[in-house]
This record gives sequence, structure tokens and C-alpha cells, in this order.
Amino acid sequence: MLYVVGLGLGDERDITLRGLDAVKSCERIYLEAYTSILPGIDKARLEQLYGKPVHLAHRETVESESDTILDNADKVNVAFLVVGDPFGATTHTDLILRAKELQIPVEVIHNASIMNAIGCAGLQLYSFGITISMVFFTETWRPDSWYDKVKTNRTLGLHTLCLLDIKVREQSFENMARGRLVYEPPRFMTVNQAVEQLLEIEEKRGEGAYAPTTIAVGLARVGTRDQVVKAGTLQELLTADFGEPLHSLIIPAKMHELERDYVRLFAINKETFDKYAELA
Amino acid sequence: MLYVVGLGLGDERDITLRGLDAVKSCERIYLEAYTSILPGIDKARLEQLYGKPVHLAHRETVESESDTILDNADKVNVAFLVVGDPFGATTHTDLILRAKELQIPVEVIHNASIMNAIGCAGLQLYSFGITISMVFFTETWRPDSWYDKVKTNRTLGLHTLCLLDIKVREQSFENMARGRLVYEPPRFMTVNQAVEQLLEIEEKRGEGAYAPTTIAVGLARVGTRDQVVKAGTLQELLTADFGEPLHSLIIPAKMHELERDYVRLFAINKETFDKYAELA
Repeated sequence: MLYVVGLGLGDERDITLRGLDAVKSCERIYLEAYTSILPGIDKARLEQLYGKPVHLAHRETVESESDTILDNADKVNVAFLVVGDPFGATTHTDLILRAKELQIPVEVIHNASIMNAIGCAGLQLYSFGITISMVFFTETWRPDSWYDKVKTNRTLGLHTLCLLDIKVREQSFENMARGRLVYEPPRFMTVNQAVEQLLEIEEKRGEGAYAPTTIAVGLARVGTRDQVVKAGTLQELLTADFGEPLHSLIIPAKMHELERDYVRLFAINKETFDKYAELA
Repeated sequence: MLYVVGLGLGDERDITLRGLDAVKSCERIYLEAYTSILPGIDKARLEQLYGKPVHLAHRETVESESDTILDNADKVNVAFLVVGDPFGATTHTDLILRAKELQIPVEVIHNASIMNAIGCAGLQLYSFGITISMVFFTETWRPDSWYDKVKTNRTLGLHTLCLLDIKVREQSFENMARGRLVYEPPRFMTVNQAVEQLLEIEEKRGEGAYAPTTIAVGLARVGTRDQVVKAGTLQELLTADFGEPLHSLIIPAKMHELERDYVRLFAINKETFDKYAELA
């Protein structure tokens, strides 16, 4: 059996009882390390909880070595652990598709993911439109196709979840050219950086998808004990401190009254919030 | 402290370790029984796992008796348990808002909800538009405002999650008129019923939001060991058997190749699937 187990968003104790039962029954345990990062835990703490070694599976491993991961999984149990919920990234559907081809039974054990935990900001999950991803701008690459999506969502009265870039195992051009497997330190986009890019593109496009006075919600370390949620105008969020990664951002559409009341709990400045929060 | 704890989607062992730690530290435990149902468990099994009594909180309790629930919660720990994730329904934001007014600290412990677990169908969560709710039609009340939402989603290339009606603690007109607190047996909308309503409204509106040959995905008991996922044309789903509740339905937009390959695993009939699945 291949168990694909979501670890949730916080630390090693965010696994479910059923997930832990499954992991403990496994001969081999892999932790998917590419598409997501769980700052609260490390391999050693997982190993201590499970009483077994945990192998890190990098993107290369998952895509090119799926047959190693799945080896013998028709006879013994193998666990593939994913931060959040298993269905956040396509990489895992690849692995499951491969398992099914090999006639290996698969059991998925779900958990919280950023896609539902952002409900903690008090905006109705039902009223979110398409999710956008914001990548780090470079000098020559400043993609803004997400702008139309935010605009459409807001026009339709839908909130936009904005997932912020994570760069892990990056190589510098020099190291890549010389074939050296040396990686740059990981980088995580902050709410401040995301807002800066949002404002730059609004300035350039000028279609009024949002403005510096638009109320947005920045979130950090969602689902952990020290999570931070702050609501304010984009201008305010440009400099608000959110601390350690991971950060996310919500650009709400007009809010319903109960949504507005709840988001207001997190207002950096109640006065500007009351002035600029738009009611549906 | 008020702990608001998500129970996940399956049975009592879908709580997280952190959630169980919290519940075990509580003097009083309430299980929210209105907005959601967890068919796999009952109160007795929760009580056995927690080693404590669990009180059912019906809608009336949560809204009108929030002060009873919160009584003394600035001094002792109180748990409020919610099937799925705590932020699926506004009722809980009400309770949390009230706790904050009373200066009671609140900790939310997230879990899987239908909003992210439907990723198991293989359609990218990022590409879902607004979620719709389908209520039981009556002879005189056949609301179809969701039709425009499905149409807009599909026009924008976004999938639609369709949550199906749950009727619990319904009263007949007669019992209500006579002031008798007698409730009808609970009713859960099936995929078949939802599809029937979808086709009726397409027939009436005729704007081509979808057709009897549109590929959709029906799901039952998502997140449990005996979950069922079936993909087929709406015509096929009209009669496909999904078994016990709860059911949900996804009306996909055009799919990406990897999405199509994954959804195809669940095809009732590979031939019609290949004929009618639309690629982006």
C-alpha cells in the first residue's frame, strides 16, 4: 500500500491519528521536500515521533525516482508525506498515477492545507475565485498575468488568495554553468514584497483592479501557534512586519458584514480599515 | 482558552495529535451538530477516545447559547469541535467573535475540509472558481441563481464545486404549526438528485452552461476509507450509484492534460469519457 499522508501546516503533531497509524505501519517513509516547507519541524523530530528513519524526497527524486519510492509497495507499506494536504501540487498526482499503473493500492490521508486554513481570516471560503501565484520579479522577468485574474475575481465579488513564491535548491548561473550542485539559500516571498509587486503592476496597467487604499489581509505561518494575520490597506501592508515565513496574502472583494466584522479584528489601524473596507 | 478543533472528514481518528492534546486538556467539550455531519462517528466513540463527555451543540445552542459554551473559558479550557475544518460555516466565526469580545483567548486547530479534500479528484484546487450550494427543490421553490455561477466559472476556465443540501432537524408544517418539537429524518442530497436539478435548469435556461454530455465528477464520503469517486457525463451520473452520504459534485471546466489523465481513473465509461472530456 502507498499511503499519501498530509502533515498539516504546523509541526509534527499536526498529523492525524489515522495518518500516524499508517506511517507507523510503513517500511519506508519519504518526506516530500520540494513543493512545500514546514518551518516548524525537521526530519529528526518526525523520525523521533515515528520511531523510523525518514528519507527526504526532492523534486528530482519524486519525478525521476518514483519507481524507487514505489518499489515493492504492492507487498509492504510505503508512506509519502506531504506538508499540508496531498493535493496541493501536481507532483503527487504524478506519483499516484504511477502507483495505479503498477497496480499498487493507494490510500490518501487528508489534512489542512493553506487552501482551506486561510478561512482563519474570516472571509468565506465559498467566495474565493481562482488562486494566483506571485513569483519573485527579476530585472528582466516581471510576469503579471495574475493581474487579470485579480481583476476578474474582484469584479465578480470574489476574494483572491495569493500564494507567494518559495525558492529552494536554486542554483546560481555560475554554479549551474560549471555543473556544480551548489544551492543558494532558500528564499521566501514576504507579504511586503508581494504588495510591492502588486502596486508596481497596478501602476503599470492602471486598470483599477485595486489601489493602494484597497484593504487586504496578510498572513504568516497559518495554522501554527504563532500565526500572524494583519489587515490593512496595501499601503499599510507594504511595511507591516510579519516575521518568519511562510507568508500569504488575500485580496478581498467587497465583504459581507460578518466577514468585515471578523477581518476587522486583525486591522492594523481600525480607522483606515473602517474608511476603506468595502461592503457588498 | 477556547479551542476550536477541526475533526476532519472520516472518523474519530481523523483528529490531529495536537487537536487531541487540546481536547484532553478541556473541562467541557461541545460538538457542533448542525452545519455538518460525520457519518463515520458518533458521540460515544468520541467520548471513548477523549475519556470525557461530549455535548451536542445544535444551531440554537451555538447561536443563542454561546455564552453558556464560553462560560468560564477565560479560566478553564473549552473545546468546540467541528466536522471538517472550523472555517467552513459562519456559525463558528460568530462564536469566535463573541469569545474575542469576552477577552477569551482562542486557538484554532485546522483539519481537512471538503474544500480542499476534493483535490482527490485530480482537478487543481487553484483552478476552482466560486463554490455553489444546491438545495432540494420543492414544488414551489426551485432556486437557480447558482446557474450563472457555473456558467461564469466555466467561461473563465474554472471548475465548480457543488455542495449538496443537508436537511437535519427539519420540522413538518403540521408539527411546526402545532408547536411540536418533532423532527423529520435527516435528508442528504445525492449526486443523482443534484444532477437531475442541474439538467432541469439547463433545460429551462438554455444558455449552454453545460449539457447532458458534459463530464462531471461525483464524490461520496470524501476523506473516508470507503470514499467513491466517479467521473462521467451528467447523463451517466444521473443513475450512477454512490451509496451512503455525504455526496458532492464537481463540474469541471476544460481540463489540463494531467487533470484529464487523473480524472480518467474514475471514469464510469472510458469511451464516453474520452469522447466528451474537454481539454484546455
